[in-house]
Amino acid sequence: MDKNLDSIQPIFWRENQLELLDQRALPQQENWLKYNDSDEVAAAITDMVVRGAPAIGVTAAYGVVLAARAAWKNAAEDWQQAMVEPLTKLAGSRPTAVNLFWAIDRMTALYKTLPTMQSPEAVLLIEAEKIHAEDIKANHVMGHLGSELINPNSTVLTHCNAGALATGGFGTALGVIRQGFADGNIQHVYADETRPWLQGSRLTAWELQKDNIPVTLQSEGAAASLMASGKLDWVIVGADRISANGDVANKVGTYMLAILAKYHDVKMMVVAPTSTIDWQLEDGKDIPIEQRSAMEITTIQGQQIAPEGVAASNPAFDVTPANLVDAIVTEAGVILSPSLETMKKIKPEA
Amino acid sequence: MDKNLDSIQPIFWRENQLELLDQRALPQQENWLKYNDSDEVAAAITDMVVRGAPAIGVTAAYGVVLAARAAWKNAAEDWQQAMVEPLTKLAGSRPTAVNLFWAIDRMTALYKTLPTMQSPEAVLLIEAEKIHAEDIKANHVMGHLGSELINPNSTVLTHCNAGALATGGFGTALGVIRQGFADGNIQHVYADETRPWLQGSRLTAWELQKDNIPVTLQSEGAAASLMASGKLDWVIVGADRISANGDVANKVGTYMLAILAKYHDVKMMVVAPTSTIDWQLEDGKDIPIEQRSAMEITTIQGQQIAPEGVAASNPAFDVTPANLVDAIVTEAGVILSPSLETMKKIKPEA
Repeated sequence: MDKNLDSIQPIFWRENQLELLDQRALPQQENWLKYNDSDEVAAAITDMVVRGAPAIGVTAAYGVVLAARAAWKNAAEDWQQAMVEPLTKLAGSRPTAVNLFWAIDRMTALYKTLPTMQSPEAVLLIEAEKIHAEDIKANHVMGHLGSELINPNSTVLTHCNAGALATGGFGTALGVIRQGFADGNIQHVYADETRPWLQGSRLTAWELQKDNIPVTLQSEGAAASLMASGKLDWVIVGADRISANGDVANKVGTYMLAILAKYHDVKMMVVAPTSTIDWQLEDGKDIPIEQRSAMEITTIQGQQIAPEGVAASNPAFDVTPANLVDAIVTEAGVILSPSLETMKKIKPEA
Repeated sequence: MDKNLDSIQPIFWRENQLELLDQRALPQQENWLKYNDSDEVAAAITDMVVRGAPAIGVTAAYGVVLAARAAWKNAAEDWQQAMVEPLTKLAGSRPTAVNLFWAIDRMTALYKTLPTMQSPEAVLLIEAEKIHAEDIKANHVMGHLGSELINPNSTVLTHCNAGALATGGFGTALGVIRQGFADGNIQHVYADETRPWLQGSRLTAWELQKDNIPVTLQSEGAAASLMASGKLDWVIVGADRISANGDVANKVGTYMLAILAKYHDVKMMVVAPTSTIDWQLEDGKDIPIEQRSAMEITTIQGQQIAPEGVAASNPAFDVTPANLVDAIVTEAGVILSPSLETMKKIKPEA
């Protein structure tokens, strides 16, 4: 692996605090923001300083460390009780990505085993760093598994940003794209600009340009005619939550791409760590879809675009039924033709 | 018809000159620009001061009047020869909308019958005003024909702007929506914001808001989940060129909507005057698709969005095959299930 393909990391624990690369200002500015307070971490997730399901999970894990530090400082032996409120706030920061709850649950399961008589911070920090490292490792495993599905010299389309910036590092969909490019399986990447937040334009194009992977930006409306031209082999995206039957919640527009891909005989790949799978949900219809502010549609980067006062609908995600997905790539293996049955291959023992 | 629904007109001939409402500045500013020179009219079309296939046709007709005035002033009895260069420039202003060539051809056919010994301006002005008035009248006819296809209390989605601003007045797709709303057949309109030029956000939302027709903006990526929700009855769009078999070139993203509509059993209506039909083209594959500047994708309203130097593809239009269209509504009649055969119903005698 070219060292260069692993250069971007959006999350650091440095000098006893959490540092996040402010994704709202990219690519024009690379600002690092520092966090010592778990409520501020929750606000950073809501405000999309950090975004992307796995990155939210890693960030929340570090947020639990900060909550534990404050709880020990303020409540001493009652620190476990003092964790409840800040962790509830962290869990309420965004509703759709399940990795958020997964990370908080994993940290909670650990801290509940800890003695009340000593500070939990050091042990929890080790666990958060483990979650972070496992995420990066999983991305590399998925990168190889996904790349193997792709024929040499293929052209692919990605949507939103499922890159290093959306994870602990390397990326899910962009991990497959990085590995696929290194392997000679991918020669060119199209990136949807991804309204309203323009993750494709601001983040994915920036990541791929940094890694010298050929990328062409386009608006979402251009995906169908690109597919009709016969140039495209795969659509490769991440996921925010996958139900037990393989239905996929991901950035709004993913469902559109899955329908267009099926219509044009283009393959559809979803790349996500198993922490993205919500085994409690039998199918995708019960995944909560975050409605974000109308302002993200009516203004762009602070400039008013639409007439004042016009209504706007801004669902951040949509749900793609499993039957429109050719492959779900996880670090535990690849599921072809996902369904309740085939997904069992990677389901943990109860 | 409520007088209020016919209040917006983007093109005027006033005080011996052409006035265009600058659509680049809407809705924040309503600036009228004045034109006395046909080359400047050509530049206004290229730069999208005016856009929309029928509006481009009407504007070009007035451009021919200005070209004739200059030709008579500069070349006297050789004025017909002096028309060739400016009309070539007008015809080269944009490649996809056939109404541009249709209007220039109609004006040319007329001026070739005129005596060389006198100024052609007055006669050509009458013809341009006739083209303009015919366009508005056609839109009202189509408004009624389209509305009749829609069941009471329907919800519709439109893409780009095929409104008063895209025509001589009243609009094609928005003409049907205005009439459908007046008739009680349409109760709510969703408008795609329509990247990259944001015609839906800036122009369609503005028109509908002015006419008090309930409108909700959304990004293109949200159309598929809106359809899956079962809320949508019709997609209603305009067209820039229709081939003899009913294939439709329209704003990029239209083809996407047609596929999504078919997938979700939503109906697809295309509304366009017969001047939009290119009977010379048997199907849509030979319609030239304008590639516009990458800057329209990488910047928004002058602000850099994407990283500097990234490539972008910016096809302004796409082609929807006739088999994805339920109805083409023209002033000469409605074609259901368009095909080479069914389109003959409105084909003029050879």
